[in-house]
Amino acid sequence: MAQNIYDDDDFFAAYSGLRRSIEGLAGAPEWPYLRAMLPEISGRRVVDLGCGFGWFCRWAAEAGAESVLGIDLSEKMLERAAADTDDSRVVYRRADLDMLDLPAASFDVAYSSLALHYLADLPRFMAAVARSLVSGGAFVFSMEHPIYTAPLNPRFVTDEAGRVSWLLDNYLVEGSRTTDWLAPGIVKHHRTITTYISCLQRAGFTLEHFHEWAPTPQEIEEFPDWASDLDRPQFLLIGVRRVANRQ
Amino acid sequence: MAQNIYDDDDFFAAYSGLRRSIEGLAGAPEWPYLRAMLPEISGRRVVDLGCGFGWFCRWAAEAGAESVLGIDLSEKMLERAAADTDDSRVVYRRADLDMLDLPAASFDVAYSSLALHYLADLPRFMAAVARSLVSGGAFVFSMEHPIYTAPLNPRFVTDEAGRVSWLLDNYLVEGSRTTDWLAPGIVKHHRTITTYISCLQRAGFTLEHFHEWAPTPQEIEEFPDWASDLDRPQFLLIGVRRVANRQ
Repeated sequence: MAQNIYDDDDFFAAYSGLRRSIEGLAGAPEWPYLRAMLPEISGRRVVDLGCGFGWFCRWAAEAGAESVLGIDLSEKMLERAAADTDDSRVVYRRADLDMLDLPAASFDVAYSSLALHYLADLPRFMAAVARSLVSGGAFVFSMEHPIYTAPLNPRFVTDEAGRVSWLLDNYLVEGSRTTDWLAPGIVKHHRTITTYISCLQRAGFTLEHFHEWAPTPQEIEEFPDWASDLDRPQFLLIGVRRVANRQ
Repeated sequence: MAQNIYDDDDFFAAYSGLRRSIEGLAGAPEWPYLRAMLPEISGRRVVDLGCGFGWFCRWAAEAGAESVLGIDLSEKMLERAAADTDDSRVVYRRADLDMLDLPAASFDVAYSSLALHYLADLPRFMAAVARSLVSGGAFVFSMEHPIYTAPLNPRFVTDEAGRVSWLLDNYLVEGSRTTDWLAPGIVKHHRTITTYISCLQRAGFTLEHFHEWAPTPQEIEEFPDWASDLDRPQFLLIGVRRVANRQ
């Protein structure tokens, strides 16, 4: 079962103030790379796993999706998503992605933004997503990069010469990590890239896209803080295709 | 052009003293995982890119390969490889992998151990390997993990509480790195996992295996120093298959 931190009052307030919560996809620097991994959306049945405020669901509907199902665990986020959505093709549903249960072969495109690192049972989730897709269906997702989720006490350090480094430890030791981000006690699940790729393969997916997001020189000029994102990747974006029925 | 550090007297002497130089494949802890990625060797034409002392070439011949071509830049290593090999199916050739030129569709299996991080021109190399393989041919290789090659000044640090961390920086900044390992001034080329995967895909390979080597609890008991390999992966092992002619 995934932690429902997004319904915590303090976390929700802080999260609502993030640029990506206010500006939506335009405020998420990794979005253009995810969008480039997506297949044609027009006429397709789309599911968004961890839809949050529904920004992607509304984008997909505007891009001509036949139907869009947004799933999230947070009541508060779904409430705002519903209030912000005026399109009958978009439906929101509350569910724990660790207990995901979707009808077989009912979607053409699955999408998930920065949710997978919260899941406790990745093999179950991948199998459920694969089963829900038609043969040839696409799954495009982002997550926190394993280099970012690995440390028990994640932080940068600066040495005597002023050089900044990311303190990496326990990369190869998988398991939960409790960190403070917007609120104390956020539980994430660290896994290696090896595990993500083999989980996808075992679920019947084939890898099409793999991208470690990096800020551009222009973005670093606009947001100087982002320079440290060159030292360790924060986001990993992956696009896969369902090649065969394994269920 | 790749640096020919292996023909440096001091480097060669130090390298010759490593466990993997004395014991061969049995002294390389990542070998069992690479071997598991390899297809059937019996009756196949095999090429080893960066063959060193020829341990893998002799193993492939013993496994029944029809022919084995070992390529390396180091004269000293090839000299010893030839002296240690008594099998007419194994042929050694001196060449710079950055200028690799092999006949088209002339091999069934390509193998490379810990050589790719020395190459300056990865796209050229991948295209040359793909071209040299038959359709469906396999390429199995290991390299230093990008987390290991990224830092400008690679090292572990220990904090006040005794916790060890790997100082990671410049992961997303590709380019050459000059470090001291066995001898001063070793030049390696750092690339992200993104770049390795997209290079492989562009050359016409499809990903089959991806493994970040980790020591087992038994190995850590035998070699306590290896515990720090859990903090950051040292080796990345990849197995791909040539799916289509792109040349």
